Amino acid sequence: MEIKPIAYFRSPLKEKFGTPRQAGLVQNLTGAVEFCDGFKSEMLDGLEGFDYIWLIWGFSLNRETEGIPSKVRPPRLGGNKRMGVYATRSPYRPNPLGLSSVRISRIDAVSGRIDVLGADLVDGTPIYDIKPYLEYTDSHTDIRSGFAGEAPARLKVRFSVAGQVPGELSSSDLAILEDVLSQDPRPAYHDDSDRVYGLDYKGKNVRFKVEADTLTVLSID
Amino acid sequence: MEIKPIAYFRSPLKEKFGTPRQAGLVQNLTGAVEFCDGFKSEMLDGLEGFDYIWLIWGFSLNRETEGIPSKVRPPRLGGNKRMGVYATRSPYRPNPLGLSSVRISRIDAVSGRIDVLGADLVDGTPIYDIKPYLEYTDSHTDIRSGFAGEAPARLKVRFSVAGQVPGELSSSDLAILEDVLSQDPRPAYHDDSDRVYGLDYKGKNVRFKVEADTLTVLSID
Repeated sequence: MEIKPIAYFRSPLKEKFGTPRQAGLVQNLTGAVEFCDGFKSEMLDGLEGFDYIWLIWGFSLNRETEGIPSKVRPPRLGGNKRMGVYATRSPYRPNPLGLSSVRISRIDAVSGRIDVLGADLVDGTPIYDIKPYLEYTDSHTDIRSGFAGEAPARLKVRFSVAGQVPGELSSSDLAILEDVLSQDPRPAYHDDSDRVYGLDYKGKNVRFKVEADTLTVLSID
Repeated sequence: MEIKPIAYFRSPLKEKFGTPRQAGLVQNLTGAVEFCDGFKSEMLDGLEGFDYIWLIWGFSLNRETEGIPSKVRPPRLGGNKRMGVYATRSPYRPNPLGLSSVRISRIDAVSGRIDVLGADLVDGTPIYDIKPYLEYTDSHTDIRSGFAGEAPARLKVRFSVAGQVPGELSSSDLAILEDVLSQDPRPAYHDDSDRVYGLDYKGKNVRFKVEADTLTVLSID
């Protein structure tokens, strides 16, 4: 089956590194669905009655691999335990499709844009389908979710850059950034408190270190 | 992007007619995911800790159409109100992908089969991805779901076939069948109490009529 992008995602996060690992982890992270040619504004009629939508999208930043591994190492198991690919949300799967529920913040049907909150898509991600989230069929509670029963643990985030934040970043940007960083963007296995990491947020380079359960932002340029 | 089936669905329902319109509407409806060549049993390692999975699948029974309509008539609005395609779960969408969460009842990793409950997939449907359902990211409650805020209304079901039920159908089959029929399989707009409909369940022809809010099963052959 041949599928074609109907839209692309726009995010302040331009790289995989730092992008949340699931939807909703950074609740206030802004983003937008921008529809492609072929879109008609009436395709969104009625969507204003919904709070959430599903995005079915492509893991377009996967590196080239020879074949798909049957088992993968989920980051939340510290990268040292292997699980079957169908028991995980790993991007490396036979058909590299992603699935995310995101909150609608604004619909602009005329220009073909839906502003959303809480996405885990990198800027530029192709989107193949959008569906309304229907609570009666999509929501299950008090169920077992295997090794991912709760949202991952968070780091404490400390800014050591007071007064040196670029003026283009607002206080809500800093709140979002704090939430992004608290997710611990480091690859599993990394535990080197001297290592300096860099994350791209709105084109700014955010440099930080992690020691134990605390992440310290060193600079934002 | 080219995607290939990883599995096919098996259901006692062989046709679109009668197949539930969303997952979970017929909670005890049995079904199975049968993996294709290329499957390895270790791909399911860890899935035993989950209660639900997502299926991303293809609307393989769509009739040929010239282009995709921007607006569709959802059955639950009686077929007389049009909504934007992205505000609905209509099968006729730019990329004909379906999305369903189903309950796992049994995993047979050796033969590559997952028995599930509550699916809305017709027998033979191609499946493109399977993901674990993660409550912390996938479940939203107390939200607005537009025109589909609750599960659709049900019909009362009356069997006028006592003693004439084929022996191959068990009492649990009849309970499932009652639940399937209560969903009102008729196309929207149909309201002819003399019309006799036929539904295929496990190869049996189930004939019924509907008058007002009551469906009467006439025969099961």
